[in-house]
Amino acid sequence: MSNKGITPREEDYSQWYFDILERAELAENSSVRGCMVIKPYGYAIWENIQKNLDKMIKDAGVKNAYFPLFIPKSFFSKEASHVKGFAKECAIVTHYRLKENEAGDGVEVDENSKLEEELVVRPTSETIMYDTFSRWVSSWRDLPLKINQWANIVRWERRTRPFLRTTEFLWQEGHTVHSTHEESVQEVMDRLEMYVQFARDFLAMETYHGRKSESEKFAGAVNTYGVEAMMQDGKALQFGTSHDLGQNFAKAFGIQFTDTDGETKLPWQTSWGVSTRMMGALIMTHSDDNGLVLPPNIAPIKVVVVPIFNNENKEKVLSVASEIVKSLKKEVDAVELDERDFVSPGFKFNEWEKKGVPVRIEIGERDIESNNSVVVRRDTGEKESIGYEILASKVSDILSQIQENLLSKSKDNLVSKTHRVADFEEMKSVLKGDGGFVLTGWCGSEDCENSIKYYTKATTMCLIKDGEGKKGRCVYCGKESNDEWLFAKAY
Amino acid sequence: MSNKGITPREEDYSQWYFDILERAELAENSSVRGCMVIKPYGYAIWENIQKNLDKMIKDAGVKNAYFPLFIPKSFFSKEASHVKGFAKECAIVTHYRLKENEAGDGVEVDENSKLEEELVVRPTSETIMYDTFSRWVSSWRDLPLKINQWANIVRWERRTRPFLRTTEFLWQEGHTVHSTHEESVQEVMDRLEMYVQFARDFLAMETYHGRKSESEKFAGAVNTYGVEAMMQDGKALQFGTSHDLGQNFAKAFGIQFTDTDGETKLPWQTSWGVSTRMMGALIMTHSDDNGLVLPPNIAPIKVVVVPIFNNENKEKVLSVASEIVKSLKKEVDAVELDERDFVSPGFKFNEWEKKGVPVRIEIGERDIESNNSVVVRRDTGEKESIGYEILASKVSDILSQIQENLLSKSKDNLVSKTHRVADFEEMKSVLKGDGGFVLTGWCGSEDCENSIKYYTKATTMCLIKDGEGKKGRCVYCGKESNDEWLFAKAY
Repeated sequence: MSNKGITPREEDYSQWYFDILERAELAENSSVRGCMVIKPYGYAIWENIQKNLDKMIKDAGVKNAYFPLFIPKSFFSKEASHVKGFAKECAIVTHYRLKENEAGDGVEVDENSKLEEELVVRPTSETIMYDTFSRWVSSWRDLPLKINQWANIVRWERRTRPFLRTTEFLWQEGHTVHSTHEESVQEVMDRLEMYVQFARDFLAMETYHGRKSESEKFAGAVNTYGVEAMMQDGKALQFGTSHDLGQNFAKAFGIQFTDTDGETKLPWQTSWGVSTRMMGALIMTHSDDNGLVLPPNIAPIKVVVVPIFNNENKEKVLSVASEIVKSLKKEVDAVELDERDFVSPGFKFNEWEKKGVPVRIEIGERDIESNNSVVVRRDTGEKESIGYEILASKVSDILSQIQENLLSKSKDNLVSKTHRVADFEEMKSVLKGDGGFVLTGWCGSEDCENSIKYYTKATTMCLIKDGEGKKGRCVYCGKESNDEWLFAKAY
Repeated sequence: MSNKGITPREEDYSQWYFDILERAELAENSSVRGCMVIKPYGYAIWENIQKNLDKMIKDAGVKNAYFPLFIPKSFFSKEASHVKGFAKECAIVTHYRLKENEAGDGVEVDENSKLEEELVVRPTSETIMYDTFSRWVSSWRDLPLKINQWANIVRWERRTRPFLRTTEFLWQEGHTVHSTHEESVQEVMDRLEMYVQFARDFLAMETYHGRKSESEKFAGAVNTYGVEAMMQDGKALQFGTSHDLGQNFAKAFGIQFTDTDGETKLPWQTSWGVSTRMMGALIMTHSDDNGLVLPPNIAPIKVVVVPIFNNENKEKVLSVASEIVKSLKKEVDAVELDERDFVSPGFKFNEWEKKGVPVRIEIGERDIESNNSVVVRRDTGEKESIGYEILASKVSDILSQIQENLLSKSKDNLVSKTHRVADFEEMKSVLKGDGGFVLTGWCGSEDCENSIKYYTKATTMCLIKDGEGKKGRCVYCGKESNDEWLFAKAY
């Protein structure tokens, strides 16, 4: 373990992730199995994700609303493949009252409060929303209907890890209804591209995106499209999906509309979402052995000013530091002054480094005399002495450079970890080695997909544009294949 | 029922409320007992409440975080009076898996998935948060700890009504930990005042606030303070509370800290919250028989521009209307242009009136010729013809006037519906008549409080500043009383 209390990635990548969560004060396990506590600093990052993504969603003409946490069991099973996909992992409310136990030292479930119909805690909201949509939609004038919800979700996962896979997580789920399939497919693709763009512009993450295989698609969907990122350890991470639901749910929930031609028709639907899983991707993409690294566009604190003072010069140094913060705030938002006097400057440097603050500015008495401050970049560790007059504009430039640099590193990582392989032996050796994405022919059969998974632990990620129509041979069975698919071992 | 499809208040106040919810498209009952669907327009108001209140909370040095939805049964019962207060109304998760039923036509709870310890869906988060706080707090340096959470809450209520009382609702809950009681009491009062200020500045609502009686306080608190509003039908509505938790929960959850003097001490705690109930108060305070009335400071749409056109002049009118919207947006936010061509202007006027948009601007061909537009205020119905050059600044003024007017009407309603009574006969007659707040002496005994409730259906609201130390006689038993309390029939 390093002097930061962080296990190096080379030594134990999984422990490194946990150490970052702890040292950067992002999240921790709670006393409830599989449920995390999102700590203030972690939640502030999530709030920035919410704020910026919410704007993109609203700009796309989607309106936010809120639907019940609970889903009656009977709704849940209306769409056959949907219930099959979620039945095995849901929290079920069966009673509504506790009573004192006989010993008088605690409470127990009051058996007299058994519900007539059990309620499922939402693992996703298609069923409860579409029951409502069937009352909202009756004419072409009601379409397209575009609704989004920010909510908590519960899926009873076996193995959990904060952000990456938790029993309860936070997400947004968009649900739209259209009069034509053409329009709904366009929506599916637009929202997918929106996620790709969001990842690029805010999270500084370059990703692949495309259609998922039959076995990996959402329970109840006609087609699912995913956004896939590549982590530093060669494992992929899917953090966003967009589903073409066809008319499956419209049929199951009786959503109908009278079209302009007077005919009663079934509409076409989509759903799409990203969750706090995105936080896991963000953390693992940029961070290093010294702690979290955050892209400025999503950082709760972009610049921290650390004054270096002793008892004698405290007042003077703090006063200059305050002035500097004031002038910085004119060009940069999210600037913080660390005035604490019960910890040393070294302690502070260490702390803000672990928390991934993009730029640190040090101001001591000697710097003041020369009208300079030391500016340190979190992404490269580079130090530079910069004069006060140009500090604000320079820092603003540096923040843009950091954002660009992180995106460019992410792009390099994606490209360098993508391997086109010729045969199954090569595929196995790549996946046994450094991992990464494997791009190769696949015939599309589930048997081959299963066998590849069995022998390599890699699953199909998605069919990217580059792979579409690229004819060749299936890497497993050798039969003709129409497309090249992306495979990887994944989180 | 009026031509707007809204039952007049005089005829049936309760139906009027439901009609407003429906006609203004705010919320509706869902298929899940007691749970509502918050519709896009209603949710947009809630988002404005969240955004503005969240800023006030953050400005008070409180940080947002997120804690689990589920609370282990054993945590829940750690604080004796807390569990007593909530045990009878909570949703309980007992299983985590469904399976196909024997008939093969649906799903049933898989009895093999019974949880070892049942989980309570949070009815409030003191217990789950303070279990965590016991690990976060160890030194005076960790204090004050100020955490807030925006979350969904479940309480199994018998009788529900959208926004006012629902099984699931949305809220914020603040939780703070302090080293001294003096400081924690200050926090309790500061947050209470924050709610009063928020109601005044954004919701245009004047309220009373003060300490609740023993019987009305939060389960587990030493003292509870409430914010009480007066509805148009003479019933009170409490929409915010702030609790002095003393050291009750610190004891139960083992929260301790080492103070500056080296001693290990129990800290002092507070919690405080407002919920979607505030939406009910907002709706009932300002609305009239024509629909919702919204204060501009919280309205999702402040100004709607309705162009009046036919097939011949459509292009011309729309082009002028767009120009006007553009110039309005320079001085006013949340301006919307209603360009729909498949409904009539009259239909639009009606719709925006029902939705409570503060200002409507009508633009027809004749208005364009005279460089004028008709500006209609939702609160008073006043119409005014205003020239284009001064339109933006005039509308901005009118919005301020509406905000002020609504607050002043709310203040008048509060004052005119507050009655100081001399004896129980007068109290009964006031409460049987138009209702409102009754200000009177009360000895503080729970027996008198119960009897008053039995005979009048009115409960103690709170002890306002004006009533503190106002000696007299208890309105019920006639014994000496130290204070004058506020009573009312309440939602």
